[in-house]
Amino acid sequence: MYERPNIRRMAGYVPGEQPLAPAIKLNTNENPLAPSSTVVKALSDITPVMLQRYPDPQAGQLRRAIADYHGCELEQVIATNGSDELLRLAVTTFGVPGHAIGITDPGYNLYGVLATIQDCPVARVALDDDWNLPGDIADRWNKAGARLALLTNPHAPTGRLILSGVIARLAAEFQGVLLVDEAYVDFADPVHGHDLVSLIQYLPNLLLVRTLSKGHSLAGLRLGYGLGSANLIEPILNKVRDSYNVDAIAQHVATVALGDVETTRASWDFVRGERHRVSMALRERGFHVFPSEANFILLRVPETLGKAAAIYSALANEHIHVRWFDQHRLADCLRITIGTARENDCLLSAIDGITGIAPATALNDNQSPGNAIAGA
Amino acid sequence: MYERPNIRRMAGYVPGEQPLAPAIKLNTNENPLAPSSTVVKALSDITPVMLQRYPDPQAGQLRRAIADYHGCELEQVIATNGSDELLRLAVTTFGVPGHAIGITDPGYNLYGVLATIQDCPVARVALDDDWNLPGDIADRWNKAGARLALLTNPHAPTGRLILSGVIARLAAEFQGVLLVDEAYVDFADPVHGHDLVSLIQYLPNLLLVRTLSKGHSLAGLRLGYGLGSANLIEPILNKVRDSYNVDAIAQHVATVALGDVETTRASWDFVRGERHRVSMALRERGFHVFPSEANFILLRVPETLGKAAAIYSALANEHIHVRWFDQHRLADCLRITIGTARENDCLLSAIDGITGIAPATALNDNQSPGNAIAGA
Repeated sequence: MYERPNIRRMAGYVPGEQPLAPAIKLNTNENPLAPSSTVVKALSDITPVMLQRYPDPQAGQLRRAIADYHGCELEQVIATNGSDELLRLAVTTFGVPGHAIGITDPGYNLYGVLATIQDCPVARVALDDDWNLPGDIADRWNKAGARLALLTNPHAPTGRLILSGVIARLAAEFQGVLLVDEAYVDFADPVHGHDLVSLIQYLPNLLLVRTLSKGHSLAGLRLGYGLGSANLIEPILNKVRDSYNVDAIAQHVATVALGDVETTRASWDFVRGERHRVSMALRERGFHVFPSEANFILLRVPETLGKAAAIYSALANEHIHVRWFDQHRLADCLRITIGTARENDCLLSAIDGITGIAPATALNDNQSPGNAIAGA
Repeated sequence: MYERPNIRRMAGYVPGEQPLAPAIKLNTNENPLAPSSTVVKALSDITPVMLQRYPDPQAGQLRRAIADYHGCELEQVIATNGSDELLRLAVTTFGVPGHAIGITDPGYNLYGVLATIQDCPVARVALDDDWNLPGDIADRWNKAGARLALLTNPHAPTGRLILSGVIARLAAEFQGVLLVDEAYVDFADPVHGHDLVSLIQYLPNLLLVRTLSKGHSLAGLRLGYGLGSANLIEPILNKVRDSYNVDAIAQHVATVALGDVETTRASWDFVRGERHRVSMALRERGFHVFPSEANFILLRVPETLGKAAAIYSALANEHIHVRWFDQHRLADCLRITIGTARENDCLLSAIDGITGIAPATALNDNQSPGNAIAGA
């Protein structure tokens, strides 16, 4: 055993299952729609020389495209091998071993794993009953001596959107770097006018993390990026990052994808529509569905409908994969990615079959819920 | 300034320039030959769903292909986003902050940068005059308390091949993890029968690092991998590594590339032939060329031929990029990647023009060295 003691003691992060087809995958929050043909065709632009030579270490063209997309400056942008890499780079750059990293409970479980790798304890602050931030969260992170805090917004796994004003106040009050992981922000309803990017020039400790995995349907490509003040980006970009962290293909395909606005926006609208439909349908069946601005929903299973873990397993038996977290405050919940209309219909029918509770509407349509999957 | 003090104080690693074409790039040790059409065509196998969904987090098919290629077990293999990522993962997993990491002087400058990021001092041991390891190197690393040591073999930037038996003894004597970075091993002459892979089952602290960047002409793809005992691989693979560190495209293209043995082997033979020719030609011109088993050569510039830095700059002015290191023991040297036959001819002619010393053979051919590039 040669690994460091903190590594030896820890358990690694366990991502959601990636089952082989045919299956309905509603467990790892991918976009239900495939990327457009424009994006897929960009692969045919790759020349032998692009594979043979090292890529641009600064990913200049891609970072320029990201800066233009968001209306910010080149030196406010870093591109990474998925947003996971940026989370890790931020922890390496700003997380002082032995000093706390601020997180929320619940939250994205990877954050705690990254903190442990860096030998940092976590300052875990519980969200309130509606999954909102408690008013004293900055104070509590500060008192714990945190130099970095990690927050997903819209929040995972709850789907709660924390409003721009709340984030701005938190960044102003928190003494360290506030990393806001906006993996799901594309799916927030435009009605909220949610915008953190315009804040980065005023808040020197605000680091935004984005990904093309969800909003742009490119989870297989591994492309994330960060937006923040140049002072925050510079040490990550020029000191801690591997020189050639984004390969030549990803640099090119991502640049094309950022120009493909129409298809991606249509997918966001689609997800919002289905999110509303599925949420309503599940509420009708007696589940407590938390309001979500992400491409997934968190629902609480009332005792009358059985155990969340049992529904999770029964769905998996029908090759429908959702996420269940065996942890504090979430053990009676399921997190379900919004799929295609057909996938969502299958899910609802399967839930009807499992719980034995057919909603009024389904019965009115004379459907037999238990057979809906076989017939789909 | 929010970054950790060790990050604040350090300078980042500076990779070789990636100039825009047209230029002769002999500065970052890429393979002079492009990947085969089989490998490039593998890009057309990428489906929209492969981009839409997360890739296999364990990179199972690719790791199986690597294991088969080397005749080892799946659990002895980890795949990474270029070998840079694996170097970093090894430092994170095995490098204890505050404890030394063993390196050689000279050596690959990135190693020191990675140690600094992890807040580890370096135990720097000087190579002897022929760039061989001193006999007491394990002892010196052990006395410095090193828990990890990093060694390139064939060595960079010297090209020296350290023999398998020497490595085996070093691993047995060294108390920590011995990482041997075999980035250039494909170019070693088969006459040496060099083989470290067969040692991993006997030496539980030996971690081999490989890359497709050089031997397989795929620097733009970013694919590296590690080979070692399952105990060594496991914490890197399942605890410290990002879940989806190798994208779907790289997993597929690399798997195809490993099957494309004929083209890659031909490129190694070609490089060996050109390495011999260029080395001889430079020796003829009065340079001291160190014996190399890599796809680059290190040469020492005698005073009679001028200053290495001046030749470096003059070559750059003629759009021929080589590498000069402004550091102890290397300031009078140049590191030159072996290029195509035409690129190597241009290099030799340009050197003739710069140094004003035309070798007998060149003059016999009635060439005008100073005009050789323009005419090439």
